[in-house]
Amino acid sequence: MAGAEDVRVLGVLASPFAMRPRIALNLKKVEYEFVVETMNPKSELLLKSNPVYKKIPVLIHNGNPVCESLVIVQYIDEVWSSSQPILPADPYDRAVARFWAAYIDDKWFPSLMGIAKAQTDADRASSTEQMLAGLQLLEEAFATCSKGKPFFGGDALGYLDIALGCYLGWVRAIGQMYAIQVLDGAKTPQLAAWAERFCADEAVKEVMPETETLVEFAKMMAARWKAAPAPAK
Amino acid sequence: MAGAEDVRVLGVLASPFAMRPRIALNLKKVEYEFVVETMNPKSELLLKSNPVYKKIPVLIHNGNPVCESLVIVQYIDEVWSSSQPILPADPYDRAVARFWAAYIDDKWFPSLMGIAKAQTDADRASSTEQMLAGLQLLEEAFATCSKGKPFFGGDALGYLDIALGCYLGWVRAIGQMYAIQVLDGAKTPQLAAWAERFCADEAVKEVMPETETLVEFAKMMAARWKAAPAPAK
Repeated sequence: MAGAEDVRVLGVLASPFAMRPRIALNLKKVEYEFVVETMNPKSELLLKSNPVYKKIPVLIHNGNPVCESLVIVQYIDEVWSSSQPILPADPYDRAVARFWAAYIDDKWFPSLMGIAKAQTDADRASSTEQMLAGLQLLEEAFATCSKGKPFFGGDALGYLDIALGCYLGWVRAIGQMYAIQVLDGAKTPQLAAWAERFCADEAVKEVMPETETLVEFAKMMAARWKAAPAPAK
Repeated sequence: MAGAEDVRVLGVLASPFAMRPRIALNLKKVEYEFVVETMNPKSELLLKSNPVYKKIPVLIHNGNPVCESLVIVQYIDEVWSSSQPILPADPYDRAVARFWAAYIDDKWFPSLMGIAKAQTDADRASSTEQMLAGLQLLEEAFATCSKGKPFFGGDALGYLDIALGCYLGWVRAIGQMYAIQVLDGAKTPQLAAWAERFCADEAVKEVMPETETLVEFAKMMAARWKAAPAPAK
């Protein structure tokens, strides 16, 4: 359906944020080109397309750049509105999905990354506890949003599936590096089963990075954080 | 049009975030009850309606709570979709509006509050510089979004007008407290003129707090920040 359209995603393979537009475009069956951003130095295309943040991902649709991964996913849903919907149809369900997507980015993912960034065992334990408490909330959110169906979005992947699912590669990598059972079938059985379904979905398979690749990347980043710890927040 | 509906906004008068749903409901001509949250201690209604963040504002629509001010504004736009639209109709314009609204909350407003929170003159100067640089970006965004019309949203107030405009009371209060010309007619002429129009709009007038009230509130907060400075970010 996107024959005459020029659709490009500027990103890097290890970025969960860059996975979001790719999964959304796959769900919509829109053909796109994935342009790998070298980052060091940042490409002219990135600097020109996202002058405010200079960050990936950027969706470039017929020459028009769209920035910020969740803004991009909503844009994709609205432009290709006749294909499989990504946000729920009902306004209240949409508000609930937007609320939890923001929670995942603002609160939950920082606690997951806090495990890798921690410089002491106490900090790591504190981040782990926060991250697991957040997952418990998300387990309850899954029950509310999925209404007994396989995905947050119901019968098929939707907005919240994409928002949380893009982090599953990092969940595995950090779990492996620090011997933490992040998605525990006993504590968060619904999310654990959902994660299996999400990763097996056709729209996701080709864009989910190998855990080993992320572990390598995380080790490199951990060495960098150790050399220059992030400022306290 | 909202005769049989139960619409309540839980908030406090000085909160820019609580102004957002109120302006949106005024634009839609939806009747609502403003429930003043006492905050200390937090009400049972707040704790029950927003158990994750325990923060105002909350919109309670026929018993269903919606949290996070920009999520609420989008919800209002989608529920009362036959009245004056709040988000632009075009998907690209919507993405641009969402991008800048997030920028305003994540980057610009923290730099404005940084002026009040600063414990040293150097920190205050640095926050002032960041805030003014951000305004310059928003001046350009105004030109792009308004397309020569009076508001970000075009002929009438829209999403981005609400997102930025709700901070104008704080712009005045902080400008007065620290003798800073925030909206400078020479440097940001379009925003300065827009701010006058925004504050004079019927949907805004009754919800915009008096500058003096905010100055009093800011002085109280400044004393608190001096006693317990916020952690570095």
